[in-house]
Amino acid sequence: MNALHSTIRHSAVFDHPEMGEHENVVFVKDRDTGLSAIIAIHDTTLGPALGGCRVWPYGNPSDALTDALRLSRGMTYKNALAGLDLGGGKAVIIADPRKDKTAAMMEAFGRHVDRLSGTYITAEDVGVSPQDMEAVARQTKHVRGTRATGLGDPSPYTALGVFEGIRASVRHVFGNGDLEGRTVSVQGLGHVGFDVARRLHEAGARLIVSDIHLPAVLRAVEEFGALAVDPAEAHMVEADIFVPCALGAGLNARTVPQIRARIVAGAANNQLQTPADGAALKKRGILYAPDYAINAGGVISIALATPGGNDAHVREKTVAIGDTLAVIFERASAEETTPERVADAMAEERLEKSGKT
Amino acid sequence: MNALHSTIRHSAVFDHPEMGEHENVVFVKDRDTGLSAIIAIHDTTLGPALGGCRVWPYGNPSDALTDALRLSRGMTYKNALAGLDLGGGKAVIIADPRKDKTAAMMEAFGRHVDRLSGTYITAEDVGVSPQDMEAVARQTKHVRGTRATGLGDPSPYTALGVFEGIRASVRHVFGNGDLEGRTVSVQGLGHVGFDVARRLHEAGARLIVSDIHLPAVLRAVEEFGALAVDPAEAHMVEADIFVPCALGAGLNARTVPQIRARIVAGAANNQLQTPADGAALKKRGILYAPDYAINAGGVISIALATPGGNDAHVREKTVAIGDTLAVIFERASAEETTPERVADAMAEERLEKSGKT
Repeated sequence: MNALHSTIRHSAVFDHPEMGEHENVVFVKDRDTGLSAIIAIHDTTLGPALGGCRVWPYGNPSDALTDALRLSRGMTYKNALAGLDLGGGKAVIIADPRKDKTAAMMEAFGRHVDRLSGTYITAEDVGVSPQDMEAVARQTKHVRGTRATGLGDPSPYTALGVFEGIRASVRHVFGNGDLEGRTVSVQGLGHVGFDVARRLHEAGARLIVSDIHLPAVLRAVEEFGALAVDPAEAHMVEADIFVPCALGAGLNARTVPQIRARIVAGAANNQLQTPADGAALKKRGILYAPDYAINAGGVISIALATPGGNDAHVREKTVAIGDTLAVIFERASAEETTPERVADAMAEERLEKSGKT
Repeated sequence: MNALHSTIRHSAVFDHPEMGEHENVVFVKDRDTGLSAIIAIHDTTLGPALGGCRVWPYGNPSDALTDALRLSRGMTYKNALAGLDLGGGKAVIIADPRKDKTAAMMEAFGRHVDRLSGTYITAEDVGVSPQDMEAVARQTKHVRGTRATGLGDPSPYTALGVFEGIRASVRHVFGNGDLEGRTVSVQGLGHVGFDVARRLHEAGARLIVSDIHLPAVLRAVEEFGALAVDPAEAHMVEADIFVPCALGAGLNARTVPQIRARIVAGAANNQLQTPADGAALKKRGILYAPDYAINAGGVISIALATPGGNDAHVREKTVAIGDTLAVIFERASAEETTPERVADAMAEERLEKSGKT
């Protein structure tokens, strides 16, 4: 296949500006259950397209389509860079998860996933519960993260990958990966953030923590001896490493100039508001671990889980995130570019190489 | 399922005004071969969605989508009314069949049909050759009208169904189905039209024929003793039956007042330019055989063909088109409505009944 970015010759073919690159975009309607969904299959060069299913009350169908197209494309890059033999896809269901969603609707979604004969494999995402995925699994075997496939909660693996990524970042900047005595600001103490904080604490780091949810903060203060700050100030504190594990777009024109850490390496999705924010980090001499590279532990665990629960293979592939980041950082230095550009290039190179064999 | 016309509650969900009714609309892109296609699966209540694949150089993607949505919906009605256990679908490939189409592109299309795990079954349509279908068949078994499935040419069956439909129309209007001495104007002498003319001649009808292609006209004059007229005047001649077997939209505000026949019953697709033209025919006392009911012999033969070539079942189902039209005409008289409305209602009734079992 051609490079993923060679959109020019196809861009005029379908209406949507991001439609041209995708192998399949499937509009789904089930009259009986009211299901309206879009399944986007971006690329299957490396294998079936794996990506979560999101339930969201989109204001209009065009927003839903944009989301499906962008997220599925992101999954192609994430899965390729994580070394998985899987392509990229994503599903969005246009519904309010609290009001509209029913078991019948999720079963109908499962039937439609099953129609795609395994070219798309679904999983949990925003607005979808484990019970919802069990409903999907009653209608198709092309689903991951269920009782039948094992491993309901990918958070510990996401956290493991982020921890290994932090160590690789520290090694690149300071010459060795020792976290003893390093100061780390962890923003967001959800399942992933709290687990990252625990690992950092166990490795001897000094913790600064923040979350809008107070009990998690108090627990971190008590268990890890962490210093608590306002979440809005987490990026500004005096620290070696800033670890964003909360919402996306946290790295922007306002916050980047305020960062005092030498490293930004966290689990949040879509951390850079624009590509210019990545360039600004590089200019300020701050090392940035590309989000989709460092937070791939979750999808690795979803992809490789087995019902038996032996997770040696999952752990091995997740720990390798550190090695991948080390290569990314080396190459970004050598090529005088940003790590996120190198990550994209490495994903594309794997796809091109695979497409030619 | 609900009635096919209950579009209101879904009409706001997807952008396109005709999108709401369809189970699946699949946008297809193959980077290597340049394939751009839309596969529309309107309804699978009765079975897999059968409908042809059209290759056409659409001016813009929106036109292609409109075509795919309308044609696939039409196939649901056609297949339901023909008594087939098949739903309605259609594929359009956005390409110039003379310049852009390649065997590799048709094979890629076949692979994408195969991804849909048999919910869509493809076949020949405008811009597609038997060789193209063999290329598709190398990649998927979900295809009809190939060497492997039997019956390359559906024209004789379309003609048989039209002939039976003409007899049913004559029986309804004149009290018996005898064609001896009836005058019939056949417009268009392609594969189907010529075969209809031959059957009418053998049944003792007097023929008036017309075509823009002169050799076919001369042959009909010689073989059937037909009278030749200008194709543009075929609908105006003094005849009992007008049989349109050429282009669509031939029944419109200009032509309907000029028709002198008591019956319009032919093979052309989309004969009525607007629903108002059907109402105008009824008002003038002219019996109209709904096009998708009378010309279903082709799809019946495509659907039921076997490689062995024993066509008894195909002929039986095609001859039954006459019975279906007799019911349609009776009911239209009793309900004081047009035959095309009754045809739609009968198709919907079959779908609703089947959806509830």
